[in-house]
Amino acid sequence: MGENRMMSLGALVAARDAGKAAPELMVALSRDAIARKDASIRAFSHVAADPAVSFDGPLAGIAIGVKDIFDSFDQPTSYGSSAYAGHRPLADAAIVDLARRQGATIIGKTATTEFAFFHPAETVNPHNRAHTPGGSSSGSAAAVAAGMIPAAIGTQTGGSVIRPAAFCGVAGYKPSFRLLPATGMKHFAPSLDTVGLFAASVSDVALFASLLTGRDLTLEQVDAAQIRVGLYRCAELGSADPDMQDALSAAADRAADAGFDVGEIEEPATLTEARQAHVIIQDHEAGLACGPDLARFRDQLSPRLVEVIERGQAISPQAYDEARRLAKRGRAAARLLFGEVDILLSPSAPGSAPHGLESTGDPRFNKLWTLMGGPTVNIPGFTSEQGLPLGIQAIARFGRDRQLLSVAAALEPLFANSQQHQGSV
Amino acid sequence: MGENRMMSLGALVAARDAGKAAPELMVALSRDAIARKDASIRAFSHVAADPAVSFDGPLAGIAIGVKDIFDSFDQPTSYGSSAYAGHRPLADAAIVDLARRQGATIIGKTATTEFAFFHPAETVNPHNRAHTPGGSSSGSAAAVAAGMIPAAIGTQTGGSVIRPAAFCGVAGYKPSFRLLPATGMKHFAPSLDTVGLFAASVSDVALFASLLTGRDLTLEQVDAAQIRVGLYRCAELGSADPDMQDALSAAADRAADAGFDVGEIEEPATLTEARQAHVIIQDHEAGLACGPDLARFRDQLSPRLVEVIERGQAISPQAYDEARRLAKRGRAAARLLFGEVDILLSPSAPGSAPHGLESTGDPRFNKLWTLMGGPTVNIPGFTSEQGLPLGIQAIARFGRDRQLLSVAAALEPLFANSQQHQGSV
Repeated sequence: MGENRMMSLGALVAARDAGKAAPELMVALSRDAIARKDASIRAFSHVAADPAVSFDGPLAGIAIGVKDIFDSFDQPTSYGSSAYAGHRPLADAAIVDLARRQGATIIGKTATTEFAFFHPAETVNPHNRAHTPGGSSSGSAAAVAAGMIPAAIGTQTGGSVIRPAAFCGVAGYKPSFRLLPATGMKHFAPSLDTVGLFAASVSDVALFASLLTGRDLTLEQVDAAQIRVGLYRCAELGSADPDMQDALSAAADRAADAGFDVGEIEEPATLTEARQAHVIIQDHEAGLACGPDLARFRDQLSPRLVEVIERGQAISPQAYDEARRLAKRGRAAARLLFGEVDILLSPSAPGSAPHGLESTGDPRFNKLWTLMGGPTVNIPGFTSEQGLPLGIQAIARFGRDRQLLSVAAALEPLFANSQQHQGSV
Repeated sequence: MGENRMMSLGALVAARDAGKAAPELMVALSRDAIARKDASIRAFSHVAADPAVSFDGPLAGIAIGVKDIFDSFDQPTSYGSSAYAGHRPLADAAIVDLARRQGATIIGKTATTEFAFFHPAETVNPHNRAHTPGGSSSGSAAAVAAGMIPAAIGTQTGGSVIRPAAFCGVAGYKPSFRLLPATGMKHFAPSLDTVGLFAASVSDVALFASLLTGRDLTLEQVDAAQIRVGLYRCAELGSADPDMQDALSAAADRAADAGFDVGEIEEPATLTEARQAHVIIQDHEAGLACGPDLARFRDQLSPRLVEVIERGQAISPQAYDEARRLAKRGRAAARLLFGEVDILLSPSAPGSAPHGLESTGDPRFNKLWTLMGGPTVNIPGFTSEQGLPLGIQAIARFGRDRQLLSVAAALEPLFANSQQHQGSV
């Protein structure tokens, strides 16, 4: 795993600000790493030939990868589909423009599953190339995990940030809905499509979010005794792999040992119902948002994508409205729940990255929280018996992003079995 | 005004279903009307050369105009900006695809202000060509008003459906947020951008919404005595033109005479505060969503658009979050308000269409209701001293679209000073 030594955004920024690393050198470091590693990882769908390096802005010298579900005017944008091969949008997506304005270098587009749904990209898991990196933000997670770039941008509609972050052993952050702008992404289900971020560690991803948005998401001091942490008990827990169940128990134990106020939280029935609403909302919206692609490019879409679009178009507006009502009731229940607890802990995925590249894994532990719209973060650190990363998902109330990141950063060193996932320049 | 005799969607659909009008003939009727009238009205930015006519689907034979803020793969899409002149998107917007799937013929793209903001299109008001048609959905409203097409699609971020509908004397319907899909539109402020519809009368626009979406939005029987109608009193009312103030009073009086339970509703302070939040939310989101255009096409944007994008980029995330909190409190207050009243009546605009084409008028009576996310409809019928249309805006609780349309359709004949606005084939 030595070759996968990750790049820490915090270390790079500190080196730059201390005058020890010039922006063009920092970008060159990523260019070199991509040249050496990406032939085997295949995290990038396109690498910029001669990317502009900025010397101004809080992200000057930071080479980032952008999931190829976002438009970029200077690099081809294919949304993971042959239907859009070589497509050149006229303008950037909003998040790409924002990153450039903050000084970041868009070093390449990272591989996505087809339209950010399930048909896999070519990317492999840097921890074991016979395993999936997860999806749909496959390339963003793998590029950070393989130590090619310090930060990347992705999206989550079901579990497409948290799951690949977990499988690749990096920090993934799905912010509160609309904290990051989605304009200029290829939408799948617009009321669920959430822009998210990847970096080597939780503190790195919090720094990335702060520098990108100008929001104060820097880590605050955590008084563990004042933080109520709930191990979230839902029916899906029983279907998690044994080593994931062990990791979750260990996470709760280590948090308690560190002084956090740890308890167990049973899933309210309203949230169980809301979880069922996710697929109806997602598919109905996909039937509308991807209907134009079905009409134009049917033969170039995967059978599974065609099936979901057609299924979505067959869902009645009445069923969709009922699902939205369930989601709304769920959000009210979540607000109540977060009166009792500050942070929930749950698996990021049923286990470590599955063997094979045909499937990107299962979002069953993520969908509810995407629908609820509050922030979640994947905390890396645990490993499976096979030595693959196991991610713990921390969840907070809508708008409590700073508290979530601060607590997750405090938990992260407690979860690390070894130092192998700690990043450095 | 005889030349402006409008096409009624209901009459066309009835004639088709009775076998008295074939779809290709109905589309030819619109093609002919456009050929005769649009040189002087300039409602269309592009007219399809040989548009496909469908013989299946509930909208078969219905020629519709689509605001040129929506992507269409077979017609140029310019978003009202020279920066996108001749742009050919690879796929349709979701609403365009949906309309095609229901059998509609996309007969042309209707003129929009630049990026659906304020810089005007070339369209004139069919009731008096020296006056603005309103905006930003200028062409959609004018094309229906001039009797060129029976129905059109537009968008509203501030007042861009209700205001042009009012100025042009047609029915305009801004549905509950997300009732119609926005994917594939050029976004300005995504949390406000709402897709809306135009037709000759309220019953026509309700029929259009039903046939387009498969929702049951057909008019239901209204028991006037059971419907609480509130004349909405806000500070802006004092700034409305005298003839608009008279029209609003007359609207309330006629509703009371017809047996509706009419009263006055004072604006709650929370809603006054929420109204102030609209511009902060809109501008901040425009700074993000249109940032890529500022970066790429600055010299091709109007000074006013450049100014709003830059102003938006200078609004802090903290100020944006605070504005979102005000909006959220406003939505809670609106829910309470709609416990006391079913339908609110308010001006659709401060008066009739202003003279001149430099300004598209003022959205001060619309912005709050766009932010609240519930349905609104412009009820035509009243006229100013100059003989120009004066629109009354009816407003309902989120999700109560069918009740709103039903009540508005019952009020519409009461508001009509004459029969000049009643459509027929």
